Amino acid sequence: MNDNVVPLHRGETPREPSLAPMLGLTASAMNAVNAVILDKMQSEIPLIPALAGHLISGGGKRMRPMLTLAGAELVGYHGTRHHKLAAAVEFIHTATLLHDDVVDGSETRRGRQTANIVFGNPATVLVGDFLFSRSFELMVEDGSLKVLKILSSASAIIAQGEVDQLTAQREIETSEDRYLHIIGAKTAALFAAASRIAAVVAERDEAEERALDDYGRNLGIAFQLVDDAIDYDSDAASMGKDQGDDFREGKMTLPVILAYARGNEEERRFWRDAIAGFRTEDSDLAHAVNLIRGHDALNATRERARHYAERAIAALSIFPDGKARAAMTEAALFAVSRGY
Amino acid sequence: MNDNVVPLHRGETPREPSLAPMLGLTASAMNAVNAVILDKMQSEIPLIPALAGHLISGGGKRMRPMLTLAGAELVGYHGTRHHKLAAAVEFIHTATLLHDDVVDGSETRRGRQTANIVFGNPATVLVGDFLFSRSFELMVEDGSLKVLKILSSASAIIAQGEVDQLTAQREIETSEDRYLHIIGAKTAALFAAASRIAAVVAERDEAEERALDDYGRNLGIAFQLVDDAIDYDSDAASMGKDQGDDFREGKMTLPVILAYARGNEEERRFWRDAIAGFRTEDSDLAHAVNLIRGHDALNATRERARHYAERAIAALSIFPDGKARAAMTEAALFAVSRGY
Repeated sequence: MNDNVVPLHRGETPREPSLAPMLGLTASAMNAVNAVILDKMQSEIPLIPALAGHLISGGGKRMRPMLTLAGAELVGYHGTRHHKLAAAVEFIHTATLLHDDVVDGSETRRGRQTANIVFGNPATVLVGDFLFSRSFELMVEDGSLKVLKILSSASAIIAQGEVDQLTAQREIETSEDRYLHIIGAKTAALFAAASRIAAVVAERDEAEERALDDYGRNLGIAFQLVDDAIDYDSDAASMGKDQGDDFREGKMTLPVILAYARGNEEERRFWRDAIAGFRTEDSDLAHAVNLIRGHDALNATRERARHYAERAIAALSIFPDGKARAAMTEAALFAVSRGY
Repeated sequence: MNDNVVPLHRGETPREPSLAPMLGLTASAMNAVNAVILDKMQSEIPLIPALAGHLISGGGKRMRPMLTLAGAELVGYHGTRHHKLAAAVEFIHTATLLHDDVVDGSETRRGRQTANIVFGNPATVLVGDFLFSRSFELMVEDGSLKVLKILSSASAIIAQGEVDQLTAQREIETSEDRYLHIIGAKTAALFAAASRIAAVVAERDEAEERALDDYGRNLGIAFQLVDDAIDYDSDAASMGKDQGDDFREGKMTLPVILAYARGNEEERRFWRDAIAGFRTEDSDLAHAVNLIRGHDALNATRERARHYAERAIAALSIFPDGKARAAMTEAALFAVSRGY
């Protein structure tokens, strides 16, 4: 149990925050988005839908398109343009995941073999490129230069964040600031863009665009922080992410940055060796988890996440109360509490 | 010597076709394009310009942006929008090359080590993604939805062509039709788009757009056919492409398709083994070159290229005579004769 309980109305029972209201809010529109995704991942080359479908039907949360759909509800948009654009957002994300798995040599994702393992690196790189191109075709079909600007800029920022992360890999002296800069680019930029475009299709003013951008960006940082905590949290093996991947790849995430900063000289020596790639046994991972817990670095990481979730929630304050805002508020609380 | 001589005006000496008139026609605009390329490949992440610059400054012909610039001259466009768009075209091409080299595991390109060898596959994939995103940012800055549609569609077709080529790899029964379909996608689509957008920025009519598209598409096929011939032409080692790469990778290109079709049973057995990957020695490559020459398959491939070059030249017939048309005509003849 943690203290992320959902704000109560009189007479309600306290409960853990959940994504259920957000899923409910967007369920019907998500069916339309899924239909676009299914349609647009087709190609005369059978390997393309086979490979793309392996990941796309692999049980992702569709978090990013969900933000577009929830944002559209929040601003009272009644059209259908956002279906195509939410699919474009998911394609950008899927392309990134495919390339990430090649870059990291990952073997499982969401509890299944990765596409690079099933179909090989070459096909995985190229199908990522296809989905990326397709996402721009979808945006062009929609026809908003403003949306194209937001999403092409987000894509360039994501790629830079990924390269930056690669540069920081195995660099024990990576600072918390640099880490936040990296996750702001590789993760939060697309969360922000996905949310913001809802205000654009609804033709709301700059203040609402910015508010949705702030919501998505802070939510994205909270999500990534908690993802990075979960990678060292053995009770969360059921999350479907390969536990200990970050450790073996020498990725500098906040739990490690904090444990290293708070460690004594012997512990810091361990971290230097581990991040440099000289300690990759299960017993090393177990030791790393113990050090991280001993310094309360998982809770501290979640505390940082709570801070960003609160900023995400605060960004919604300019919008009227209602189902959409409540669902988006609870989604931010869920981002912090999940995996506990 | 071959019979691709440049059409003569009275009193001129016959000469081999050259890219020089095209280079001269576009030289000053290409300086502007290179400035955009240099500016837009920058990033706060130093690895990005280092890796991108390795390939971009590696002495490519800038053939695709040159088509945009030459097309603009042909239709008498006097603005500067095409500089940015030509840079976008080159970024798409560069991203494709970076990913190609990862996919093929290539070690040299244009006589230098490939980026994947110098910087590793992960960074190469991600910088390719960055350049691809950047190309869309450039198009968005220009602001033409029509150009965005042409280039996003070309990008999706290229990716499909690359996947299709991957599927055909090591498939000895690949037909000439399928091969032409693949190179039409992976190479000619971007040549066509690069040419076409010149008519778009100049706001010329659909007929001129189509004519430039036809020119670029046919020229692209001619170029690729000759590239594929050069890979089996030992006199052309100075071209800077790894000779025999296609052979070792089991790529089904026209010289092989023709030699296989024209071979006796013993030769066909050799080709089946070679394309399947069981004959990768230098002596096997030498044998392959002999078989290809014995069946005159290099000349036949160049003959096919000449056919497409002639179609490219014919497509220009709707435009007035002049320096631009003459340079583009000679470029098509050069496409066929180069490497001889």
